Amino acid sequence: MPELDNPVLHAIRERRSVRRYTEEPVSADEVRAMLEAARWAPSGKNNQPWRFLAIMGGDARQQALAELTRSGSAVQAAKALIVVALDKSAMYHQIKDHQSCGAAMQNILLAAHSLGLGAVWLGEIVSRERQVFEALSLDPDAYELAAVAAIGRPSRQGSGQRKPLADLLIEPL
Amino acid sequence: MPELDNPVLHAIRERRSVRRYTEEPVSADEVRAMLEAARWAPSGKNNQPWRFLAIMGGDARQQALAELTRSGSAVQAAKALIVVALDKSAMYHQIKDHQSCGAAMQNILLAAHSLGLGAVWLGEIVSRERQVFEALSLDPDAYELAAVAAIGRPSRQGSGQRKPLADLLIEPL
Repeated sequence: MPELDNPVLHAIRERRSVRRYTEEPVSADEVRAMLEAARWAPSGKNNQPWRFLAIMGGDARQQALAELTRSGSAVQAAKALIVVALDKSAMYHQIKDHQSCGAAMQNILLAAHSLGLGAVWLGEIVSRERQVFEALSLDPDAYELAAVAAIGRPSRQGSGQRKPLADLLIEPL
Repeated sequence: MPELDNPVLHAIRERRSVRRYTEEPVSADEVRAMLEAARWAPSGKNNQPWRFLAIMGGDARQQALAELTRSGSAVQAAKALIVVALDKSAMYHQIKDHQSCGAAMQNILLAAHSLGLGAVWLGEIVSRERQVFEALSLDPDAYELAAVAAIGRPSRQGSGQRKPLADLLIEPL
């Protein structure tokens, strides 16, 4: 049996949510590399409904966002934030468009990991969409908030675990 | 400036939806490798709401699914199908749980690509959830259909394109 492993499977398996970061900055080129990865995600009808707002460390909007989530310490410590929003004029199906944003976010997280960065997908902040959009001067008639990623250089690796595959299979394989 | 490239970014950029497959089978070990990738996706509260049903080529359920989608030719030609469903008892937020399934699906698609396979994410079939669940003997009170992946060895590569990054940025980076 051939060994079913390669750098992509390895990255997928090793990536974890990282919420603690060093003081070292994240560069605009690194953020662009993550967004380049995001844009190659698949979407229904290839509608690419995602829009991105990158906030570099130290931007005044970082502190405003930190105050809107229980993950404030990760947002404050992050050296870059990526806000993923749906362009309402590009959407065709709310659930499927959010699924696509999940695929784009996974590309961002894998890209971060592959670059030696650490990131965490913040979902709880989405419940404060109105306040987030006010803090970012985003038009709620134009966008729907999907998620936010906080990114930095890991000062502590994540340690999240997963259920065994057998528990996830509807029938044995 | 360091070159911001690596095998993970390369795979993310090169992966496309593949709808045409050779007659060569996909092995159960390859499907397990894709599902191993899926289970490492992130989810809100780490609730891991995804459940998977793998259908190997030739299974009678393959033809039943083919008749339920406009992508019937891809489903018929596929050498494996992965049905991604949400376990209703594990869900905590419909939109976020579907986002997580999007991340898990992206892991499946990237894993397939990394193994030399080709895959396509089928979303249209979700509108026929009732008939899909009947064909698969799945309890609609227990599961919510998220997506289906069709997988095989590419006989023709996909060629989907994407908007330039500049068109996706809410403000310049």
